[in-house]
Amino acid sequence: MAEEGKGSDVSILADLSGPADLRELDDDQLAALAAEIRELLIVSVASNGGHLGPNLGVVELGIALHRVFDSPADRIVWDTGHQSYVHKMLTGRAGQFGDLRREGGLSGYPSQAESEHDWVENSHASTSLSYADGMAKANLLLGKDDYVVAVIGDGALTGGMAWEALNNIAADSDRRLIAVVNDNGRSYTPTVGGLANRLTEIRTNPRYEPTLSAIKERLHRSRFGGAQAYEALHAIKKGVKDALAPQGMFEDLGLKYIGPVDGHDRAAVEHALERAKTFGGPVLVHVLTTKGHGYDIAVANENDQMHQANPFDRATGDALSIAPAGWTSVFRDEIVRIADERPDVVGITAAMLYPVGLDAFADKFPDRVFDVGIAEQHAVTSAAGLAMGGLHPVVAVYATFINRAFDQVLLDVALHRCGVTFVLDRAGVTGDDGASHNGMWDMSLLQIVPGIRIAAPRDGVQLRELLREAVDVDDAPTVVRFAKGAVCPDLPAVDRLGTCDVLTRDDTSDVLVVAVGAFGHLGVEVAQLLRGQGLGVTVVDPRWVKPVDAAIVALAAEHSIVVTVEDNGRHGGVGSAITQAVRDAGIDTPVQVHGVEQEFLDHAKRDVILGRLGLTAQAVADDTMAVLARNSLKQ
Amino acid sequence: MAEEGKGSDVSILADLSGPADLRELDDDQLAALAAEIRELLIVSVASNGGHLGPNLGVVELGIALHRVFDSPADRIVWDTGHQSYVHKMLTGRAGQFGDLRREGGLSGYPSQAESEHDWVENSHASTSLSYADGMAKANLLLGKDDYVVAVIGDGALTGGMAWEALNNIAADSDRRLIAVVNDNGRSYTPTVGGLANRLTEIRTNPRYEPTLSAIKERLHRSRFGGAQAYEALHAIKKGVKDALAPQGMFEDLGLKYIGPVDGHDRAAVEHALERAKTFGGPVLVHVLTTKGHGYDIAVANENDQMHQANPFDRATGDALSIAPAGWTSVFRDEIVRIADERPDVVGITAAMLYPVGLDAFADKFPDRVFDVGIAEQHAVTSAAGLAMGGLHPVVAVYATFINRAFDQVLLDVALHRCGVTFVLDRAGVTGDDGASHNGMWDMSLLQIVPGIRIAAPRDGVQLRELLREAVDVDDAPTVVRFAKGAVCPDLPAVDRLGTCDVLTRDDTSDVLVVAVGAFGHLGVEVAQLLRGQGLGVTVVDPRWVKPVDAAIVALAAEHSIVVTVEDNGRHGGVGSAITQAVRDAGIDTPVQVHGVEQEFLDHAKRDVILGRLGLTAQAVADDTMAVLARNSLKQ
Repeated sequence: MAEEGKGSDVSILADLSGPADLRELDDDQLAALAAEIRELLIVSVASNGGHLGPNLGVVELGIALHRVFDSPADRIVWDTGHQSYVHKMLTGRAGQFGDLRREGGLSGYPSQAESEHDWVENSHASTSLSYADGMAKANLLLGKDDYVVAVIGDGALTGGMAWEALNNIAADSDRRLIAVVNDNGRSYTPTVGGLANRLTEIRTNPRYEPTLSAIKERLHRSRFGGAQAYEALHAIKKGVKDALAPQGMFEDLGLKYIGPVDGHDRAAVEHALERAKTFGGPVLVHVLTTKGHGYDIAVANENDQMHQANPFDRATGDALSIAPAGWTSVFRDEIVRIADERPDVVGITAAMLYPVGLDAFADKFPDRVFDVGIAEQHAVTSAAGLAMGGLHPVVAVYATFINRAFDQVLLDVALHRCGVTFVLDRAGVTGDDGASHNGMWDMSLLQIVPGIRIAAPRDGVQLRELLREAVDVDDAPTVVRFAKGAVCPDLPAVDRLGTCDVLTRDDTSDVLVVAVGAFGHLGVEVAQLLRGQGLGVTVVDPRWVKPVDAAIVALAAEHSIVVTVEDNGRHGGVGSAITQAVRDAGIDTPVQVHGVEQEFLDHAKRDVILGRLGLTAQAVADDTMAVLARNSLKQ
Repeated sequence: MAEEGKGSDVSILADLSGPADLRELDDDQLAALAAEIRELLIVSVASNGGHLGPNLGVVELGIALHRVFDSPADRIVWDTGHQSYVHKMLTGRAGQFGDLRREGGLSGYPSQAESEHDWVENSHASTSLSYADGMAKANLLLGKDDYVVAVIGDGALTGGMAWEALNNIAADSDRRLIAVVNDNGRSYTPTVGGLANRLTEIRTNPRYEPTLSAIKERLHRSRFGGAQAYEALHAIKKGVKDALAPQGMFEDLGLKYIGPVDGHDRAAVEHALERAKTFGGPVLVHVLTTKGHGYDIAVANENDQMHQANPFDRATGDALSIAPAGWTSVFRDEIVRIADERPDVVGITAAMLYPVGLDAFADKFPDRVFDVGIAEQHAVTSAAGLAMGGLHPVVAVYATFINRAFDQVLLDVALHRCGVTFVLDRAGVTGDDGASHNGMWDMSLLQIVPGIRIAAPRDGVQLRELLREAVDVDDAPTVVRFAKGAVCPDLPAVDRLGTCDVLTRDDTSDVLVVAVGAFGHLGVEVAQLLRGQGLGVTVVDPRWVKPVDAAIVALAAEHSIVVTVEDNGRHGGVGSAITQAVRDAGIDTPVQVHGVEQEFLDHAKRDVILGRLGLTAQAVADDTMAVLARNSLKQ
């Protein structure tokens, strides 16, 4: 239960038809509303999983934003949209939280299809200021005086594009743009870097607490709210600012600064936002919040304040079911063994030490693991520098985030033939996190990169083996990519040809199934189904999917049809590369490519999505039979 | 002629065997050397073309760096490598400047194959601090006390990854890393944004000139050099710093700061660098230079200080030949016409207003064209914001630079179905600018993006027509991509099928040639060659290469073979998409894909490279005959 208690018996949240209603509530009702929101957050995430800590931290901020600004005319853009649950509740969707993140239910991110109050659906960090800059420029050109508000965390400010945006916003004094820095000192783990150190100085400044208390007391005593309280705040503003604020950094860029403000004091936040509105140009409002605020168990969770939780027991915070060992935990274990043997191996994470499984490595060798912030570009190019300096970096990121550093992989790492290993976690269809979290681009994107080698392990044994093979390559970049969730059961090979494992084969060679990574078991099932139709089937796991091994081409020549199955976009991926390699060798065996259609996927469970995409053994076998039947008719 | 005059009759540069020799020279000899370097820069670029303004600006800085640091043990990383000519001269390559940028001759960028003093070959901006951070971390872990020096322009500091790096560098006090900010106030055009405004305040501070003069005078009077001069500088350092320095911005990040220093006063630069070496941790040295310094004609060139020049007459600065009208000039003209008709169309450039041809638009409608700095990520995502705000942005960049914003095109623009038009100039093989300037990735990279539409015009008429069609799409991103240099002669169509133009066709349908963009003429030549062999040929220009038009698939069914030719990597591009579309339609016609092999290309003229890659009419025709012969043997 949220510590604020349950408020009144009447549910304010249930009666809320939209943000305008918020402006009719008094202080007590608003406090009760905050408690109701926290209660619903905890209940919903305990039941369905989702982002808890970040949303508990922005309850008062969310209420204040929707009281001060007039959404959707004024636009509120939530950076890294997982902090939008409160916003969803305040914009008429509280009743739908029972279906949060379920197929057909509420998305875990903003969604234009759900609400006119939602703008940005992309979950990748550090983008909000750029969107807001564009929206504010458009308002100016179209003669609109509406506001644009971007809410961005201190973690997201470590991403370069946030700085690109600040540099642009600061240069123009006319845009009605308010950047709210939601400073909780955390990404998943504590935010790193020079900026974070500076912000920490502000947070821990001994003068901060008394001064804030003074503001509160003065506001409380005035008891007038509105203009009087604003004046009270304004009167003491300069003193607070001079003593405490990190405005130098932002004002050197030409940006107005207000803060710091206690983000759990709704009235103080509202007054700061009201003041920001009066500036008539870009303003940065610095709000201090606590991740997990109002739920002790979340605040006390040292690793991540329950940043993202699977369904859990609210009394204890413990997960309801013990997740089976995942791909990440196999990597976590093996990289420590490798690091033990190879002192030149170092690790790099972009603000996700625990989620990518570099924590054990960092615990054992703290000097050899670098958290660079939410900064994939710097992660990749500093890895090139480390490699040029004689080390072997292992850059561990979610597959979807390597998109952020394509140019750096191509021209900083691959052009210089640097021995850097990229470990891409959560590759393929991830499911309920929505369109932008699916890691379905990497094997097409990286196919373009000259000289890079890509491995897709099918089980834990192969993950360990391929990781070692990858780290042994010192004159080219290597990639090891694997799916989200439970690791596939071990699937031993019956033979190895070139770099490829033969998983099963028959005396006759009708169909060659190339099963990539986690689809090894699916490949074997396809073989069983086709055997039932009287066909002879060979199933291979290429292990290294780029470059295409000569063994695949040779096998293609011996079979009547090649069927490829991969957990990646159909265009330009493994199947496409095999098609071209077979064709270049002058072999006419047709290649049927199965993969993810090139489209953005709505959130749902992984299995449901795969079924819809025809990525099941039955669907692949049926398609194969249909193609063979069609071909026999042509002859 | 360089204004410093010719120095002594003896050529110091010719006698220089390496950087160590620099430390044996006295002040007069060093001044003479600087003049010789400028002379060679002007003569070489006047003859071969290349980057002039940036290199004239770093003559003294280059000499100072190589006197103070011990390359290659100390590593000097040049951001955006086109400013490395002076460095090349000082590291034993002065004699090779007659072959600058010619095939087999000196590269216009650093090259590991040329010299042990070169590290970073990538020409994309804002990377040097990340490389340096990695190298310095490696030195620290390996117990080396060598220095790493990154030289980065104020323009490159507008790129987000430079900020990501600064945030990381600042957080660690042990790395021996010196960041030299070469502040000339320019990218191509004046650097934009809040940071640039702040730096301009420093440059134009009235106290700056007298103070610098005072430093010079004191150093001059001391006449001791070395330790004494250092002490003199040190003694007045604090006063200068407090009065003038923008250290607030950098020191808020925790970074030590020295400057500003007159970058054309070699002794002052050397002293600042010597002082930086003593800090034992990361230091930023702020050096003020003038682009084109020492060549009046370059300094006076308002647009770009002869940033990059074609061969020219050194007495006048005029180009030796008048370039034929290029693709860029057609775009420059047509976008103004469109802007006249459509007030909702706005332009965005990433610090390249003139090179991408948005200057005429900006002259006519200054409020509607935005220069965002060297910040492709922000360019793209702010375009998404502009589109959400009701405008239609046209983002004009070199094709190779869209790599920098792949994630933003995918998840910020395409996921939200924003009507943003990307104009990709210098697409395909560009030639003498080297590996990282070739725009050979875009049609593979963007094929992955759901919903995006890509057009490749074959001539000026088509560029105008397709640009208009692109800008008319308001519910999806569109791309118009074209090559570098002279626009292809107009090539009228004989028919239009779907979105495709039929360029020529016969009564019989043996070979279907799909000629993409600038390869229209090549397609027609291939047809002529194949007709000479008795074959019936159809040549189509798809115009819109993504999505694959149904007319292409229908034509494929009617022909015996499909031959695709594109100025893009062979993997995952247009030919690959057509292969898959044909296959998905159940058509067995083989598709031969011609394009750029997936490899990094050495610099040479475009025609030479295309010949080497088999992208000539003769080579394509020969390959087609060979495939047909092979297939007939199989039957």
